[in-house]
This record gives sequence, structure tokens and C-alpha cells, in this order.
Amino acid sequence: MKLATLNNGTRDGRLLIVSKDLTQAVYASSIVDTMIEAIENWADVETALTQKYKHLNDGSLKESFKFNPEKTMAPLPRCHQFVDASAFLNHGNIMEQAYDLDVKKTPGIPIIVQRQSDDFLGPHEDYPFPKEEDNCDFEGEYAVIVDDVPMGLSPEEIEPHIKLVTIINDVSMRAHLFRELEMGFGFINAKPATVFAPVAVTPDELGSSWRDGRIHLDMNVQRNGEWFGNPNGAGMDFSYGEILSHLSYNRNLGAGTIIGSGTVSSKDWKTVGSACLAERRALDIIEFGECRTEFLKYGERMRFEVFGEDGGSVFGAIYHKMVPCSK
Amino acid sequence: MKLATLNNGTRDGRLLIVSKDLTQAVYASSIVDTMIEAIENWADVETALTQKYKHLNDGSLKESFKFNPEKTMAPLPRCHQFVDASAFLNHGNIMEQAYDLDVKKTPGIPIIVQRQSDDFLGPHEDYPFPKEEDNCDFEGEYAVIVDDVPMGLSPEEIEPHIKLVTIINDVSMRAHLFRELEMGFGFINAKPATVFAPVAVTPDELGSSWRDGRIHLDMNVQRNGEWFGNPNGAGMDFSYGEILSHLSYNRNLGAGTIIGSGTVSSKDWKTVGSACLAERRALDIIEFGECRTEFLKYGERMRFEVFGEDGGSVFGAIYHKMVPCSK
Repeated sequence: MKLATLNNGTRDGRLLIVSKDLTQAVYASSIVDTMIEAIENWADVETALTQKYKHLNDGSLKESFKFNPEKTMAPLPRCHQFVDASAFLNHGNIMEQAYDLDVKKTPGIPIIVQRQSDDFLGPHEDYPFPKEEDNCDFEGEYAVIVDDVPMGLSPEEIEPHIKLVTIINDVSMRAHLFRELEMGFGFINAKPATVFAPVAVTPDELGSSWRDGRIHLDMNVQRNGEWFGNPNGAGMDFSYGEILSHLSYNRNLGAGTIIGSGTVSSKDWKTVGSACLAERRALDIIEFGECRTEFLKYGERMRFEVFGEDGGSVFGAIYHKMVPCSK
Repeated sequence: MKLATLNNGTRDGRLLIVSKDLTQAVYASSIVDTMIEAIENWADVETALTQKYKHLNDGSLKESFKFNPEKTMAPLPRCHQFVDASAFLNHGNIMEQAYDLDVKKTPGIPIIVQRQSDDFLGPHEDYPFPKEEDNCDFEGEYAVIVDDVPMGLSPEEIEPHIKLVTIINDVSMRAHLFRELEMGFGFINAKPATVFAPVAVTPDELGSSWRDGRIHLDMNVQRNGEWFGNPNGAGMDFSYGEILSHLSYNRNLGAGTIIGSGTVSSKDWKTVGSACLAERRALDIIEFGECRTEFLKYGERMRFEVFGEDGGSVFGAIYHKMVPCSK
């Protein structure tokens, strides 16, 4: 099943069921009004939503209309908890090598960063930020959304709580990142609003590409229409189950908690590239002894898209432009 | 005006207006149903809520009933962003001295930690945690709640967005804290659910004790019925306006964002004590060369309360017990 949220001027938007090929949509409001209500009541609404999704796909719903991702918000436009993992250790290792960082990781414990969940952007919204000198970067990531998770579950017990999967551009302001990382208290100015794909999908939509708590598909990243990278999600050093189990060791996770994978990253970076500039710049240093890649300037356009086993776009594309603040 | 949230079995509870002396309450539902809706629509509901609060205080509301803080949730039972500052540098300085920490602070930049906002506890709920070996600690703090704040405002511009003030016990698990701090990505296992006072109040309820973006009142902390400390909120090295301005440099803050002050702390600790165990233990080391204060065990009870200029309890008391997980 594929779900999106129409921007109807409200904070939580209006839930849409979207066809598998992303061409048609239908309001979910006969079943549930918003994505947050759906995830809060997943057991009660899943069957009816799935039924309507099937009818939409077989073309038997008269009330369906053309799906327009330009009019969507983030699938979950805001929620009560967003954490971002850094589950591709390859990315961290490259960064540490290039910048001589000493991140004190504990073996077996995933890196997870608490993040804000009140300021998400839709897939085609302009991205305003105050200064180019903040060194704007993108990060192509997978993200999952869970229903209510009580504390203390094992990775195996927790994985069935993953109800939806999507992709995000987890924008970073690198001029602030190392300062905040060195201070130890996580990210504030380094991590402003996060951008979401138009559609979130149930794990079954991924077929066999969803296994081992990982998404075994390429994250295709384009900068200004040119290929930048297509690393595969299979390389997570921790599964989503492991990340969630560590996160919920001593806390309950509210329905709608979103967990990012961290920048998708591959050891085969020479052939598949990267999903963020910081990693490419680090590889520049390792490869050439100097940075040859610039941070994002105003007017640049980023695109992130994932294609499934049938070749179709799974989540639709994030496609957005960096702009100065209007103030 | 004083507001609370009745636990009616829903995730967001039911908004109550509470009398100044905390004895009587009335449903706000003729105006607005929940605290989150109130803060999202503050300009539209403030006048009507204030009017009803006045009538409640002068005894002219027949529909009022006895206020029972045992039945309250956190005033805002969940929200879309919670950040905790560490605005009393005195606390950090003591910790750094005792434990030989090297926190790389930047002068003029407040320490702010992104936190989860999906798992708040009411003032009298038992506090379950998995293991005493996690070294459970309390932290008595002030907290403010803002309405929608656009990015890029100055401290002076932002302060009027502070609509409510309350107190919290920002529980910490110290066995995880230094490890997570050293890694750099902020807190996960070190900072589980946060506990809130029964009541949040508009800043005018604090009289002249609300000035310079600080709350000039003592945070009274009791451990198992015995005095533990009463440091004053005036000692914040950054005002709430300064903290909020730094936080919103490049992000919009959603209505209902909660900002903690960090552990209230005073240089006069010999007379006023502390608001957390970690600081008391650090002072033990500085004073006696060894820790003489134990972390919290199951069954221990904590109380936090603030008294206003008229001697009355401002927010009601946080009074709760530490318990093992029922699992």
C-alpha cells in the first residue's frame, strides 16, 4: 500500500491512498482523515485501507483522481519523535579518515541522534536557509515509521512495528556540524528541516528488497540533473530492528516515530558514488588531497528517487530547490 | 492563567482551566478541547480562556469541580518538539571540574539538546525504568512552551512567543550519559521520559519573578520527603529569548515546542543545595574527595515544587515514585 498526505492547509494534511504506479489517488477519509491518525490506529484501519488500495490499483474506484506530488506534504507532516541513525558505518569511517575525527563509538551500539519532528518539508517545496556560508549539504536516507512500541523489545519483536517506509533528504549545515559534534550534545543549527518523499509505502511493497531489516535498493541521487550517486541500502551495519531496540531500551516510542537510516553509503564509492556532499568531499581529500566538490548554493536542485524490482519509482521523487530565506 | 490536562484516556487528554490556588478546575471545552489545540490557536483562544479563568477564580462558575492533580497528564502530554538547554553554566562547570570533562563550548552559544517529545509523564505517575544500574538521576528544571515561531528572530522578538511556563523532572540515566556525550550525538538511553508538573501557567502568573527571560523563583527539590535543594532560576547564563533565538536560527518552531532550562543550579550550593544528584555527587568529590550520594533506587520518591511571590504553589507539585518495569 502507498500513502501520501495532501496539503489542504492544515497542519496534518489529508490522507491519500496512491496507486502503485503513483498516477492515481483517492481520499482515505471514509476510513481515516490523516496519516497520524492512521498510524495511531493502524490495526483498526489497515485492512480497510489495503482494500481501497487494491480497488484503486484495479481501476474500479470512480472517485479516484490524478495524483499530483506537487501538492503533497511529507507523508507524516509532523510527528512526536524523529531520530536519525548513522547506520552505514562506511560513511562515518570515510569522514573520520578524511577529517581526522575521533568518534568514540561503542561496538554493537548504533549511533542515533534525536531530531526535531515539527518542521518537515514536502518533496517539492523550496528549501530556505539563511546563509550559503552555513555549507548546505544533502543526505539521501531511508526512513521507517512505527506504530506504538513499548520499551524493552528485542530486534525481532520490534520489526513488525515498522508499518511504513519512505526516503528523506536529511539536509545538513556542515559549518555548524563539527562544532556541535565536538560539544557532544547532538545537532541543532547543523540539522534544520528534513525533506520527505511524496509517498510512504508498507514494507510488502518492497518485495524481497525488504529483508534483514534493511532496504536492498539503490538510493539514486542527482545534483542539478546530473548523477551524483546510487549507493544501496543493503549496507546498513545495524538493521532497523537493532536500531529500534536500542532506542526503546528504556522509553516507549509513540505511534508515528520516524527513524532515519543515516546517509546511504557504499564501500564501492568509486563506482556508485555517494549520497551526500560531505562524504564526496572527504573522498576528494582521500583521493586527490583536496576538496573538489562545493557545498550547495542557492538555486541548486536535488533529486532523490528509488526504483523497485519492477523498475517503477517506489516513493516518488524528492525534487527540490535551495533558496534564500524570504525575510 | 493556569492550565492542566485531564487524563481522559486519549493521547492528548482534555484541557482544564485551574484556579490560581489550584483547588478548582473547569473544562475548557466550550473554547478548545486540548492543550495542543490551544497553543496552536493561542491568539484565537487566549481571551476566552482568560475570561473563564477569572470567573473560576472569583467563584462564579457553577460547573467548576475540585482539581485533582492525580488525574492529570503532562500539561502538554506530547508535542512535536522538545529541546533541553543547559543554561546554568554553573552546573556544567561543577560537572567538568569533578569529572575532568572537556566540553568544547563556544562562548555566546547556548548548549541545547534535541529530545523526544512523544513520551511525557504526568506529575504523579510512577516512573518505570529497566535497571537500577542505569544510575537513575533527577533534574529539576523550568520549561517554557511557545506558539509558532518563524526562523530568524532576535531574542527580543522571540520572547513574546513564550505563552506558558512549567517545571519538569528531566530524568537522566547517568550510566549512559558520559558515553553518549563523548560520542557527540546527544542523548538516547541517557534521557528517557520526562515528567511534568500538573499545571502550566502564563508568564503573568509569575509577576515580577518573570523578567529578563528567566524565572526568579526557587526550585524546591525533596528526595523521600527531605530537603535536597532550592536553587533559584535567576542564575540562567542564557535567557529563554537567547536560547530560542539560537535554536530557531535556521528552523521554524512548531506551536507547542517545549524548551527546558537545564538543571537549576547555584554557585551558593553550600546553602541552597542542588537540583540533581550528578551535581551533588560532583560536589561530594570536590568537597570530600569521594561520592557520598547514591543514585535513585526503586521505591524512592521525588518532589519538585515552586512557590510564587504570594507563597502559593505556582505549578503544583511533581511527586512521583521510581519503580521497576512491570515486564
